[in-house]
Amino acid sequence: MRMHPAASAPQRITTLAGGIGGARFLRGLIAAAPEAEITVIGNTGDDIWIHGLRVCPDLDTVMYTLGGGISEERGWGREDETFTVKSELADYGVEPSWFGLGDRDIATHLVRTQMLNAGYPLSAVTEALCTRWQPGVRLIPMTDERAETHVVVDHPEGGRRAIHFQEWWVRYQAQLTAHAIVLVGADDAKPAPGVIEAIEGADVVVLPPSNPVVSIGTILQVPGIRESLRRTPAPVVGVSPIVGGRPVRGMADACLSAIGVDTTAAAVAAHYGSRRDETGILDGWLVDESDAGDVPQVASLGIACEARPLLMSDPTTTTAIAAAALDLAARTAAP
Amino acid sequence: MRMHPAASAPQRITTLAGGIGGARFLRGLIAAAPEAEITVIGNTGDDIWIHGLRVCPDLDTVMYTLGGGISEERGWGREDETFTVKSELADYGVEPSWFGLGDRDIATHLVRTQMLNAGYPLSAVTEALCTRWQPGVRLIPMTDERAETHVVVDHPEGGRRAIHFQEWWVRYQAQLTAHAIVLVGADDAKPAPGVIEAIEGADVVVLPPSNPVVSIGTILQVPGIRESLRRTPAPVVGVSPIVGGRPVRGMADACLSAIGVDTTAAAVAAHYGSRRDETGILDGWLVDESDAGDVPQVASLGIACEARPLLMSDPTTTTAIAAAALDLAARTAAP
Repeated sequence: MRMHPAASAPQRITTLAGGIGGARFLRGLIAAAPEAEITVIGNTGDDIWIHGLRVCPDLDTVMYTLGGGISEERGWGREDETFTVKSELADYGVEPSWFGLGDRDIATHLVRTQMLNAGYPLSAVTEALCTRWQPGVRLIPMTDERAETHVVVDHPEGGRRAIHFQEWWVRYQAQLTAHAIVLVGADDAKPAPGVIEAIEGADVVVLPPSNPVVSIGTILQVPGIRESLRRTPAPVVGVSPIVGGRPVRGMADACLSAIGVDTTAAAVAAHYGSRRDETGILDGWLVDESDAGDVPQVASLGIACEARPLLMSDPTTTTAIAAAALDLAARTAAP
Repeated sequence: MRMHPAASAPQRITTLAGGIGGARFLRGLIAAAPEAEITVIGNTGDDIWIHGLRVCPDLDTVMYTLGGGISEERGWGREDETFTVKSELADYGVEPSWFGLGDRDIATHLVRTQMLNAGYPLSAVTEALCTRWQPGVRLIPMTDERAETHVVVDHPEGGRRAIHFQEWWVRYQAQLTAHAIVLVGADDAKPAPGVIEAIEGADVVVLPPSNPVVSIGTILQVPGIRESLRRTPAPVVGVSPIVGGRPVRGMADACLSAIGVDTTAAAVAAHYGSRRDETGILDGWLVDESDAGDVPQVASLGIACEARPLLMSDPTTTTAIAAAALDLAARTAAP
């Protein structure tokens, strides 16, 4: 396998990314294509107001991971973090108490909240925050509008209720059966400035192994983004977040169940769909070697499919995964 | 000297208070009149928006001091404080960097800001915060409106400018000559609910040795409060914040200079004025023993005046000062 096909080295790579899995993949992508201009369209469906602060977990995970501030152990939040403010808020008895707001992290949310309240759009705020972190990519939120993922559950206090994604994910650890997952505000959301241009002006579009429902799936719900992915002259290739019938990390299976998709690499590819179909977005799809049996099924959908080791166990392996995605893209691109 | 004249023990004591000096005096007042219902009308002219948080330094100093959370060493902010958020904000390069926002303290500001943004008035927010701290007094802000003290200075960057009191006090340590001190928003401010009732329904009104310009003086600028102090049937007695021609603490001399008042116990009494005059508010005034020479001058204004040890060097001494104030009040009260 070529680590980086110099002859067809992409100059402009655009990715759609969620949190931890996406951010780790991006590290590999930067290593695999160090000369490329990489644009990351970040999921903001997880965003939430907590104690009056605007928290953007996925944007921050990407920013901290690529900027060298991430807690490697947790995968989210800051290294050397303390939780003094959280503890004090608990002493005041204010809710929610289940969200892990760290002290270092709070500074980010304070800067963001103040800028948002001053009228700056989230995309401008994100750019400002990135001047400190220098993530090495251009990070754009999927939208500047508020559009937050909610999950319809049988609530412990009775009744079927829609709760914020973070409450389902963090507080209930996705243990409440999800009957539906809804991006509240999607209809009124517009792609943030630069999103469509980044997709349609790219040499390659890569979908990292982020959650296909609440990360990539959320981004695809912003009106115009799916259409843009279908319209771009760039090949669109994805990396399966399902390895051996299980999520690489996180609780993607609970999300997939909610939308009636099997937790297999082939089912996720079919869910994204082939660009040859009416609504699909994929030209290529990488599955793990353990899912090599899925390759013919994916290929039959009109999606170029290969099996590669997809566990992002260390930087070298992750770089190889990213390089394989670029390689597949180069071969699926129109000649 | 009687520590507490049981025969005329006041049931309802109302005080006007600034920050550190006021809060320490209040400790003594609670000890001197443990059975009394004490209402504290707090100065909010020092309040400021910092990084999108509403900070009320004087209210918090009273709340933390009486609630057992104050840093005894600094006199403001929380004990065992850390400054992680402040350090991170500095790494983002956001201003102002000169204000000492501690991590524990920030939780208070987050709760306050979120409640204010949800539409609660500051008086309701303060009451809510006090349910945690149980300060043993009823703490009411002087007003629910935004009215902030500004200081007209010759600015280091040139020109005569009005800067926020906190910038003058904290950033410049009151070293820039103050040409004027103005409560911006005073005209539109109304006394917070309960303020007028607390003054006019009191058995005694006590002015602690708080800054006569930017603490007590600020409270007196809220339309209606001075008139209420003149109207109340309760005796109004004050404790001089000037001892031996110098401020007990803080930089009251710089403030007094700005309004053309000498830094003497007698001059401050004259500045407050006698209730027998047209606009004055004092029936009684305690000066320090070292300022015993000021007594005749104060008395000549129609203000009952006595010299007592006024340095709040320890809890016992502070309690004695408060008891002396109540004692003077009992003797100035109409029979």
